[in-house]
Amino acid sequence: MEKLQEKIMADGKVLSDSVLKVDSFLNHQIDPVLMQAIGEEFASRFSGEGITKILTLESSGIAPAMMTGLVLGVPAVFARKRKSLTLVDRLYTASVHSFTKNETNDISVSRDFIDETDVVLVIDDFLANGQAALGLIDIVEQAGAALGGVGIVIEKGFQEGGAMLRNRGVRVESLAIISSLANGKVEFLEEEKAL
Amino acid sequence: MEKLQEKIMADGKVLSDSVLKVDSFLNHQIDPVLMQAIGEEFASRFSGEGITKILTLESSGIAPAMMTGLVLGVPAVFARKRKSLTLVDRLYTASVHSFTKNETNDISVSRDFIDETDVVLVIDDFLANGQAALGLIDIVEQAGAALGGVGIVIEKGFQEGGAMLRNRGVRVESLAIISSLANGKVEFLEEEKAL
Repeated sequence: MEKLQEKIMADGKVLSDSVLKVDSFLNHQIDPVLMQAIGEEFASRFSGEGITKILTLESSGIAPAMMTGLVLGVPAVFARKRKSLTLVDRLYTASVHSFTKNETNDISVSRDFIDETDVVLVIDDFLANGQAALGLIDIVEQAGAALGGVGIVIEKGFQEGGAMLRNRGVRVESLAIISSLANGKVEFLEEEKAL
Repeated sequence: MEKLQEKIMADGKVLSDSVLKVDSFLNHQIDPVLMQAIGEEFASRFSGEGITKILTLESSGIAPAMMTGLVLGVPAVFARKRKSLTLVDRLYTASVHSFTKNETNDISVSRDFIDETDVVLVIDDFLANGQAALGLIDIVEQAGAALGGVGIVIEKGFQEGGAMLRNRGVRVESLAIISSLANGKVEFLEEEKAL
């Protein structure tokens, strides 16, 4: 997605060979116009899958998930990283390990909102090791729902998550795939440049 | 806002005299079409304030904040409840006490995204004791920015937050004001019914 790649080149900050900071438009400050374009792009790519529900993880996945749901005309559900007072029972839960933070957290989704009649599109802001996506897919499977695919805003193509998911037969659509952050420079995979 | 009141009556669940569960369309599963209408309503109510930025708190504020930003043509910033690895310095921080959870948490916003040239509209999903709104207003003040107002999706009019903020001279616009949850029944303030 050219508009996204341009935004990453203009406003993304390479903090190390593995960390790209996109706080200015994706995961702290949100550019709503870009999110709308991202929602339209995901909706277009998955339009033939019969998606009935979007599933994401709080907090940075909410904006792209909601815009995708708006275009597809379906609700967006965000998994919670901790239980709230009014969300205590009837939960699907999965464990997600964060290599960056070196901690494992439970994520949870109410059983009220995903069931075996759903075709679920999993959306997230980043794909690196794929642990968050695996946790969300685990919840889709617990619900007996079908997985329509995984939509990622920015995939770190030099980490193993994308290959791991695709090897499992999951359809993964990433709007920007970064092949390298070496020497402070963002390089994209060629096929994405052609989109 | 009539559409919101109808949704609360149809899908909200009264758990006690003080707890209304709206997980099915606002703070776990999101109804994107309703969020778009909410964004349009906030944008309309604050259109004369010269808003340059929306500020909210993760996670449930993100959806209404982003839709409001989309309509007003300004970015939305969400305060974080804990520090992330790539967000370690140059922060505004404020303490927010949750009476429901009986805990105090720091919230933080990067200094990169709000400054003294901004007119900030604070958006949140619920207003009860007003502690989250106060924390966000504290951050606006630390930035030297102007406060354009506070937009709330659902105000619990029987708790003190709304009166406390309005007594401080803050313009508070709540799309639904609940006067009572007694006997398992949602009652709205009359003036809101007339909107």
